[in-house]
Amino acid sequence: MSIGIFDSGLGGLTVLKEVRKIFPNEEIFYFGDTARVPYGEKTKELIIRYSKEITDFLLTKNINVLVVACNTATALALEELKAVYDIPVIGVIEAGVRSALSVTKTNEIGVIGTKATINSEKYKQEIHRRNKDIVVYQKACPLFVHVVEEGLLDGEIIESIIKHYLGDFDDKVDTLILGCTHYPLLKKEIQKIYPDLNLIDPAMETALDLKKVLTENNAAENKGGHVKFYVSDGVQNFRNIGSMFLDEEIEDIELIKL
Amino acid sequence: MSIGIFDSGLGGLTVLKEVRKIFPNEEIFYFGDTARVPYGEKTKELIIRYSKEITDFLLTKNINVLVVACNTATALALEELKAVYDIPVIGVIEAGVRSALSVTKTNEIGVIGTKATINSEKYKQEIHRRNKDIVVYQKACPLFVHVVEEGLLDGEIIESIIKHYLGDFDDKVDTLILGCTHYPLLKKEIQKIYPDLNLIDPAMETALDLKKVLTENNAAENKGGHVKFYVSDGVQNFRNIGSMFLDEEIEDIELIKL
Repeated sequence: MSIGIFDSGLGGLTVLKEVRKIFPNEEIFYFGDTARVPYGEKTKELIIRYSKEITDFLLTKNINVLVVACNTATALALEELKAVYDIPVIGVIEAGVRSALSVTKTNEIGVIGTKATINSEKYKQEIHRRNKDIVVYQKACPLFVHVVEEGLLDGEIIESIIKHYLGDFDDKVDTLILGCTHYPLLKKEIQKIYPDLNLIDPAMETALDLKKVLTENNAAENKGGHVKFYVSDGVQNFRNIGSMFLDEEIEDIELIKL
Repeated sequence: MSIGIFDSGLGGLTVLKEVRKIFPNEEIFYFGDTARVPYGEKTKELIIRYSKEITDFLLTKNINVLVVACNTATALALEELKAVYDIPVIGVIEAGVRSALSVTKTNEIGVIGTKATINSEKYKQEIHRRNKDIVVYQKACPLFVHVVEEGLLDGEIIESIIKHYLGDFDDKVDTLILGCTHYPLLKKEIQKIYPDLNLIDPAMETALDLKKVLTENNAAENKGGHVKFYVSDGVQNFRNIGSMFLDEEIEDIELIKL
């Protein structure tokens, strides 16, 4: 079994990290679309087109299962990918929702993500599909991605941006879904400002979804645990900053023109 | 004479605005590469590739002169475009430098821009080509673009980000080149915090460069002053936010797949 994982860039490495913990011996192909990052403000049509281009590429590596490790691509392209391709396709939204529902006590859940993710209402729909009684508050936080990519993970700037976005609704919810793979890097700072909030990172739960799929297909096997990375721009930058997300050196990496 | 103008997205509209003031009757084709914005953190190879794709497209509209209304594309792709294409190609960097040199009294000039622009050192080289005695301080300010695109043009967040980037060197220079077409929208707020700084917006001077080229070629003519817009994603968003940059309604706009 070979696992394909893709994201608009670096963020999906937080998902890869969890997958690696459960499957240290599987062969994994990771694609980061660094030429066209960020996805969060693109249209649905364009995100579907880019997601298909990447999936077509990963299929040439004979992947048997695909993880869409990007909330925006999951929100806007997952249905299309599932309809078009024969292999199992796993997104991050179901995992995040399941996790949040198991934790909330007040039945009031907050969701933060990119503009495209929030406008799609996919998190809200998935929450209500499972439990109609949950009150959902949503907020797009487009600056978070850029602040994380700048490495400004603490200090005055990120503090004022967190308060700007979350000040409105922190007293309304007891649980907050970090609906963008960049946001877990802000977990510590958000928790410092809002210590009572349950913060949900869908990455770990997504890895468990993958485990379920592999178990159902009796497909887990020892392929030596090699991870091959592909990016569409900036190999050196991905190698440097990627290790911050992954907590592991990024070695075998190749530039792909899409 | 038909004028082609391109930018990674919306920012170049600040240049178009100045060009329209001088040439209200020329036919203009504007391309905003909104699918692949921002350019500021991409590699030189990729920015050259994108710039050529756009220029090739604009040439199918029979443009006679090209304005690269993007500092990053000017810094990394202007030389290549000049070498490859037969029509005159005008960037924004020479204009900004000329303007700054005419204003500085202390011979200490600051330059701010995207990571790619600053790393290219093109502003510094152009300043020293004209005057070796100028001391140049440079700083990449990647968050500015995103804050402008979010419309956060005043308030606590932008104030702390301005101080974060400019706090280091505001007392060292008397003149600051806004080396990214987004930054003029922050002019008021920067000026509020640093009232003594001369802020240089290359847009106006770029329009004068264009005038010079058209005059040399006796090429100015009345073609009715129509502006045709092309974008690679998000027509509606460009129409809405674009008017903020342009101070004019954006009417004739078309989606182009690149």
